[in-house]
Amino acid sequence: MNISMLSLQWLLMIFILVSNSVTAATSSRIPRLSPVRGNTFLDPEIFPAPVSEDFQTFFYTQTLDHFNYKPESYATFQQRYVVNFKYWAGANSNAPIFVYLGAEAPLDGDLEIIGFLPENALRFKSLLVYIEHRYYGKSVPFASREAALKNASTLGYFNSAQAIADYAEIIIHIKNKYQAQDSPVIVVGASYGGMLASWFRLKYPHVTLGALASSAPILYFDDITPQNGYYSVVTRDFREVSETCYRTILKSWSEIDKVALMPNGLRILSEKFKTCRPLSNSSELKDYLDHMYSSAAQYNDPPEYPVTMVCGGIDGPPPETDLLGKIFAGVVGLRGNRSCYVNGPKYISETTLGWRWQTCSEMVIPIGRDNTTMFPPSPFNLSSVIEECNQIYGVPPRPHWVTSYYGGHDIKLILERFSSNIIFSNGLRDPYSSGGVLEDISDSVVAVHTINGSHCLDILPANASTDPDWLVKQRGIEVEIIEGWIAKYNADLHRFKQKI
Amino acid sequence: MNISMLSLQWLLMIFILVSNSVTAATSSRIPRLSPVRGNTFLDPEIFPAPVSEDFQTFFYTQTLDHFNYKPESYATFQQRYVVNFKYWAGANSNAPIFVYLGAEAPLDGDLEIIGFLPENALRFKSLLVYIEHRYYGKSVPFASREAALKNASTLGYFNSAQAIADYAEIIIHIKNKYQAQDSPVIVVGASYGGMLASWFRLKYPHVTLGALASSAPILYFDDITPQNGYYSVVTRDFREVSETCYRTILKSWSEIDKVALMPNGLRILSEKFKTCRPLSNSSELKDYLDHMYSSAAQYNDPPEYPVTMVCGGIDGPPPETDLLGKIFAGVVGLRGNRSCYVNGPKYISETTLGWRWQTCSEMVIPIGRDNTTMFPPSPFNLSSVIEECNQIYGVPPRPHWVTSYYGGHDIKLILERFSSNIIFSNGLRDPYSSGGVLEDISDSVVAVHTINGSHCLDILPANASTDPDWLVKQRGIEVEIIEGWIAKYNADLHRFKQKI
Repeated sequence: MNISMLSLQWLLMIFILVSNSVTAATSSRIPRLSPVRGNTFLDPEIFPAPVSEDFQTFFYTQTLDHFNYKPESYATFQQRYVVNFKYWAGANSNAPIFVYLGAEAPLDGDLEIIGFLPENALRFKSLLVYIEHRYYGKSVPFASREAALKNASTLGYFNSAQAIADYAEIIIHIKNKYQAQDSPVIVVGASYGGMLASWFRLKYPHVTLGALASSAPILYFDDITPQNGYYSVVTRDFREVSETCYRTILKSWSEIDKVALMPNGLRILSEKFKTCRPLSNSSELKDYLDHMYSSAAQYNDPPEYPVTMVCGGIDGPPPETDLLGKIFAGVVGLRGNRSCYVNGPKYISETTLGWRWQTCSEMVIPIGRDNTTMFPPSPFNLSSVIEECNQIYGVPPRPHWVTSYYGGHDIKLILERFSSNIIFSNGLRDPYSSGGVLEDISDSVVAVHTINGSHCLDILPANASTDPDWLVKQRGIEVEIIEGWIAKYNADLHRFKQKI
Repeated sequence: MNISMLSLQWLLMIFILVSNSVTAATSSRIPRLSPVRGNTFLDPEIFPAPVSEDFQTFFYTQTLDHFNYKPESYATFQQRYVVNFKYWAGANSNAPIFVYLGAEAPLDGDLEIIGFLPENALRFKSLLVYIEHRYYGKSVPFASREAALKNASTLGYFNSAQAIADYAEIIIHIKNKYQAQDSPVIVVGASYGGMLASWFRLKYPHVTLGALASSAPILYFDDITPQNGYYSVVTRDFREVSETCYRTILKSWSEIDKVALMPNGLRILSEKFKTCRPLSNSSELKDYLDHMYSSAAQYNDPPEYPVTMVCGGIDGPPPETDLLGKIFAGVVGLRGNRSCYVNGPKYISETTLGWRWQTCSEMVIPIGRDNTTMFPPSPFNLSSVIEECNQIYGVPPRPHWVTSYYGGHDIKLILERFSSNIIFSNGLRDPYSSGGVLEDISDSVVAVHTINGSHCLDILPANASTDPDWLVKQRGIEVEIIEGWIAKYNADLHRFKQKI
């Protein structure tokens, strides 16, 4: 990463912080939508992922605009994909190809955390392919990342329809390249990538036999899902762990506001929460807590269960501890003993920048909060989002396009006699499950959920010693369903080839 | 139409004629793909269609580019649609909406020739909607037709993916506007419009319940259908009517060449065929005959059956008549007694100009001829097409995109467990049926064909006194199938609403 790129990022961050302070629940407040755990998406150039020797990296010369024939649409870029041949039965074997569809991050991180692919590869003798999403990682059009993210004119090609068209082209290319024309393809995606996986099966059934869409909130568009779905689940997660913990958090927001208004209030809060730098306003603290609770709920993984860790902290201190002292104990409960908290150095990742554009153009996910959650009310305000995005990029979002192109309304009615072979997997403790498909739509468009699961947990690496039974069972069901699809396909293929 | 527009058309025509003379079977040789009978597509500004009082015209403010977020993608244009309310059961009645998807022509002509819609409207109490295809008729982006057709930069948005996205937006708009959110939508299309109808059901199942795709050669892409499929059927049509007629035509091409090479050869041919102007080369005559035979086969409608008319002419003269005299008698048999033939004034229609772009960008239909047809061999040459299109427009076609985006290879294998509710109707005497779906794919993705039918005959106006039984029966089957879809949908809707 060069200097000018860093300065662009900081410039944008300042812009983001400024915009955040004037608007309510706008696009910048949409919780991250990714299988990746941890505080930030790590930049692979700064934190390179450990890369297994089994992975081979390739680049495909990709068309910039699949849906336009203007001369500039013919521009190309190098799109990265990674192949693992280790388990594959080989050319002309008809062994399946499992394709992980990259999402809003560089591909590097995914190679290690998508356990579902390598863990089932031996069983299926499958080829494993990972494709990076355009505009992330090493798959950036135009001369540089800086040029690609410059403005709406260069960002315009950065959307889901173009991305899944990229995937179609690369999969067709791979099937030809490795003489695997009759190999069934199973696409796997997680979170935003899970949406892409299910949409890919809907739009390109001729390229993929089926899709595993993990924690894909495809119904969190327009008014299909209630706006406070996300934060209702966060609230329920905390309440289920501890009613007192929930009540403490509920009361804490006004207490923070009250202290902040006192003389030296911000200094008192800064000391109380051991902030790395003096707080410049109380929102800085509230946003930090907000994000911490949401992340704890979304990534509430066994065996530690972050929500339990936070509530263990909050409920732990002696009864005489004051309200904010308990909240701080919750922070320490999750983050452990550190020299300081709340506003440490913040790394602005590729994902932050890229996803900001995506949520400002196409992926308008109306998450808001009424007065029934443990958070301060903050209704989703579409006109604020439109205004904010217009200010940043000079073009407004198209908030209804996702449902126009992919559907979503009355999904059971629409798809029960159309489509097949999609698994929508969810963990009901994941706040994004509120926008997921939680009921079977047909015999083969099915919902597999766990009551205690978290975001994308099923496709993360298995851990024999700590994975609970329900998780092992969920993964087993998914594998069995996919085996069923492949068996039917092979029978169909056999009949089909005999007939020709 | 203004003067500058006319001059643009003539300029393009000259270009076309010049290009034709240097290349073999290139995109300009693809037979027209339309339900419209007659020699040309009539320009509505010159030949306005008689418009029934039942039709009301509306314009929708349409997005120029659905798949890009560049500032210029947000440009809009007025897209025409026409509604017939006469038979409709009204708002909130859940009565169906039949939507005719416009194809490569102004909508005006379609309003009268699509008999299928009004003739079944009373039975279904349906709303009838006709939507014009972008870049045709009154639905032209940019300041004028001249500006829209200027070059690849303005033509780039002119493709099928954008067109069906337009249809989705307008249908969603109409359902909201007329409180018909739960009304099932059936899309109907013919020829290229039939492809659009079937692709629309595949890509937008949430917007349409089903599709009637009449004479849609969706398999005439890449190498799915043999290149000489089209002309093989033309040949078979003639041979079935008369073996001597077929033989006469087969021998005529070399005879024309032979005469053309004689001193005064072109004058002899011009006199023999009573050409309106002296022939400037023999291709002018051969192209005319080629086109006449193909059209006769494609539009071989009852009760006259043009192929029978041509062969009646060819086989009619006394045995001593020379070969070319017989061929000329075939021309007169079809065209009747006229003052002159072959090269009369030629009107360059919107369709000619628009379809030329479409076949030069996306709709690359590889029709060629080997030495097994009654025509001179003329293999399809993809590199010539690419070169020619690049010369005209400055950008090459994307010949594999249709199968990448819509599929087509192994269609039965792919769709037998995916998709539903598509009727592929064909008449086997239509040369384009060679690229059609002629076998059922599943219970509800079905092929309905007639042995004797011609191009798009089923959706043309019924004629009780002349329609043969097989045609009446074909139409009846189509209506019954659609009734079945709607009945199932209504039952599903009932269950679905009860559950909510």
